[in-house]
Amino acid sequence: MTRVVVWGENVHDREVPRVREIYPDGMHGAIADLLRERLPDADVTTATLDQPSHGLGGDVLANTDVLLWWGHVAHEDVADEVVRAVHDRVLAGMGLVVLHSGHLSKVFRSLMGTSCHLRWRESDDREVVWTVAPTHPIARGLPPAFVLPAHETYSEFFDIPVPDDLVFVSGFTGGEVFRSGCCFNRGLGRVFYFSPGHETYPVYHQPVIGQVLANAVRWAAPAGGADVAVGSSPESATGWYEPVPTTWERADA
Amino acid sequence: MTRVVVWGENVHDREVPRVREIYPDGMHGAIADLLRERLPDADVTTATLDQPSHGLGGDVLANTDVLLWWGHVAHEDVADEVVRAVHDRVLAGMGLVVLHSGHLSKVFRSLMGTSCHLRWRESDDREVVWTVAPTHPIARGLPPAFVLPAHETYSEFFDIPVPDDLVFVSGFTGGEVFRSGCCFNRGLGRVFYFSPGHETYPVYHQPVIGQVLANAVRWAAPAGGADVAVGSSPESATGWYEPVPTTWERADA
Amino acid sequence: MTRVVVWGENVHDREVPRVREIYPDGMHGAIADLLRERLPDADVTTATLDQPSHGLGGDVLANTDVLLWWGHVAHEDVADEVVRAVHDRVLAGMGLVVLHSGHLSKVFRSLMGTSCHLRWRESDDREVVWTVAPTHPIARGLPPAFVLPAHETYSEFFDIPVPDDLVFVSGFTGGEVFRSGCCFNRGLGRVFYFSPGHETYPVYHQPVIGQVLANAVRWAAPAGGADVAVGSSPESATGWYEPVPTTWERADA
Amino acid sequence: MTRVVVWGENVHDREVPRVREIYPDGMHGAIADLLRERLPDADVTTATLDQPSHGLGGDVLANTDVLLWWGHVAHEDVADEVVRAVHDRVLAGMGLVVLHSGHLSKVFRSLMGTSCHLRWRESDDREVVWTVAPTHPIARGLPPAFVLPAHETYSEFFDIPVPDDLVFVSGFTGGEVFRSGCCFNRGLGRVFYFSPGHETYPVYHQPVIGQVLANAVRWAAPAGGADVAVGSSPESATGWYEPVPTTWERADA
Repeated sequence: MTRVVVWGENVHDREVPRVREIYPDGMHGAIADLLRERLPDADVTTATLDQPSHGLGGDVLANTDVLLWWGHVAHEDVADEVVRAVHDRVLAGMGLVVLHSGHLSKVFRSLMGTSCHLRWRESDDREVVWTVAPTHPIARGLPPAFVLPAHETYSEFFDIPVPDDLVFVSGFTGGEVFRSGCCFNRGLGRVFYFSPGHETYPVYHQPVIGQVLANAVRWAAPAGGADVAVGSSPESATGWYEPVPTTWERADA
Repeated sequence: MTRVVVWGENVHDREVPRVREIYPDGMHGAIADLLRERLPDADVTTATLDQPSHGLGGDVLANTDVLLWWGHVAHEDVADEVVRAVHDRVLAGMGLVVLHSGHLSKVFRSLMGTSCHLRWRESDDREVVWTVAPTHPIARGLPPAFVLPAHETYSEFFDIPVPDDLVFVSGFTGGEVFRSGCCFNRGLGRVFYFSPGHETYPVYHQPVIGQVLANAVRWAAPAGGADVAVGSSPESATGWYEPVPTTWERADA
Repeated sequence: MTRVVVWGENVHDREVPRVREIYPDGMHGAIADLLRERLPDADVTTATLDQPSHGLGGDVLANTDVLLWWGHVAHEDVADEVVRAVHDRVLAGMGLVVLHSGHLSKVFRSLMGTSCHLRWRESDDREVVWTVAPTHPIARGLPPAFVLPAHETYSEFFDIPVPDDLVFVSGFTGGEVFRSGCCFNRGLGRVFYFSPGHETYPVYHQPVIGQVLANAVRWAAPAGGADVAVGSSPESATGWYEPVPTTWERADA
Repeated sequence: MTRVVVWGENVHDREVPRVREIYPDGMHGAIADLLRERLPDADVTTATLDQPSHGLGGDVLANTDVLLWWGHVAHEDVADEVVRAVHDRVLAGMGLVVLHSGHLSKVFRSLMGTSCHLRWRESDDREVVWTVAPTHPIARGLPPAFVLPAHETYSEFFDIPVPDDLVFVSGFTGGEVFRSGCCFNRGLGRVFYFSPGHETYPVYHQPVIGQVLANAVRWAAPAGGADVAVGSSPESATGWYEPVPTTWERADA
């Protein structure tokens, strides 16, 4: 069972009438619903900024396989110790899906090592999201392109490291382009950034967005990779990796 | 059910006593057995050079999800029309796992666009295979390093394109290194090259090698990716991708 | 001195009045002029399909550092032996810059290993070319975005391997996006694909295009890289790389 | 003129007799000498931990094109404000070359977003450094492999992001491999990590190492790339990138 936590800043959702109208259960609530429909075997819960330790204290992170993160106006209110805990948990194997304006969150910036800034405009441009990596698991079941009839424009240059996998590129009415679906590996963890999701549009009520997010959760969930050391520098004696009982002996042994 | 075909050149296996002794059912037979043990839901069959159309005629390729390819001394005997058929089938979505000396096969070279040459030596060097991409599906369940006590040395420079994912790097007694596990995307298909497997060593009787190959088959199998056009250049009218019933209307619509 | 050859198909340029009007000296002639202005130390010549060996026979290729390639309607008329010679010369170190509809040329397809197909439309869309790799040498001196007021639309999915460097992404009026500037390494050679350049627009009279092409020629020119073997598989004795007089002795030697 | 600063921790160099013997002018002094020989047009200076602001205060960073960084035992003594200043300067375009045990420096870790840990052993293993990217500028003029007769062993798994370019892979006597030459782009800056350089061996007196470092400085120096915004998120009105006087008018304009 994949254990998923949807983290929401939960500020606009409570304070801005239009957002409250679109997302009466909060944006995190809508995202969690999208996932529950498509991942019946997952355990999907939510956490928000206003909770103690932002809802991520105790053993929550240790028991999370994939964390989704939506934040916008309150990045600076996230405690540094929570940021460090999330960062460390990603390096230890937790998947992280960063949504929309989460590109400027402390945790995404600390995982990327860049400013993560971009160009933007709120002008109801149509956004067309194109798949440029059709074999990627996050593209599973998608059309060649899908449309957000109106959305905030995010545009290049997007100051991120070169993605390990570039899955989606968006085009906007104004001629802008944006790398809107980007995968990164960090330590034993996988990170996916997906830009659709401005709070004033019902993005997280769309089936195609649910498909992307469910794909992303499946992709980011830890899969029992190679058992390497991360987070410490072990002194390793000559031949530490032997004996290896699964292989043969030298012919002259 | 994943449909797997293990293709073997089947020349050394019949003609060289030592190889016949190690692989009484042929190398393709041993590889198929390794996979059957670990992929009980897969349908694993074999095909060989000496069969009509090298065992890949009719609708065999159309009904294959993942093809494994082992060849060494008879690359030039593979018919160009079979090479083209395999190449086209990869672009259309079939996975391809190229083994050991298959790096010089016509089909691998035509998919890579490079010479695929390398340095080599038969000197019983120990090969240690290191995982450098621990989050990769092909590394699932592996130790940080595994050992072939004696093997043919393959060494850099290996004239391939930069791999999309570099999963394994091998080190040899003589100080050589080799990119021994490399992933490539081509069209809708996935290609994995894995260098262990010289015919004079019982490589394909080792459980750890079975683990790698089973992981590779799972990774390379078509996963229902984005439904893009490959193999033709469709003229596409403005707005061809609309209407898109899954998303909302513009606020002013 | 960098030796540059601009290869042009030279069919539209002679037969279509509008193209002849825009490019009275042929498209290859215009491209060569763009380069001569910006690369005064380069020796820039041209070659065309209608010449013997398409202008690339004898020792022309052996004496070329960077070849630019523009073709559209006559890809099949290029002799296979010339294609092989160009391909081999790229692997041996010659730079190759493939322009616009050259994506379907035999030589580009054989270097890529994919179909290289794409979506397209002739509808006078505006194309905005965005730099997504600002540190790349091919982006030197460019603005964040530049505009082709009207151009043929090329759109994803573009069936190429994942580029080693993605430098430009274009956005079109119709919402399409396209990876319009892509770098690939093949053997000792460097390949750059750049999509602007439809024959019915004066693309190759624009200073910004000249800047891109001059940058591309500088980037693709052989730079005296590591002296590795390509095109053969040398048997290499243990320690073949020693003695290495440039380094020290072991402390206990 | 390229302005280069070699930063040295300068602790072993003063305190450990063997290191003082090998590097009487400090490791930073030896590195600076290596560069001055090969880059006569560069202005090469040094800075050390014990200086005010570690020698990097005032306008030093603003006037540096490429910074080299060697540190080992005193990473924690580097002031956070200096780390931030170096990090910001890299994003703004300064090149950074991180040497050997600098992999655990605060600035490298903050640029990578990972732990940057690795396996290691001090056992006088021979290290053979192989070029796997022969077309890369940092490989210019190098042999296919070069040898450090005895060195500290650094081994995988090395917890870094997937490098944008993997230039060198080392093999060690004990069978270990290590990605020893790795390029990363961060913002407008370029970062190169190069692992040779343990303090108890005369690595920085070797001509081949000088060749690598000179190549790395040339590669990392800012080259006047695209003029994109980094470090802020500009609101960008529709068509902000126009007019673009360098291109043509629409045919119907």
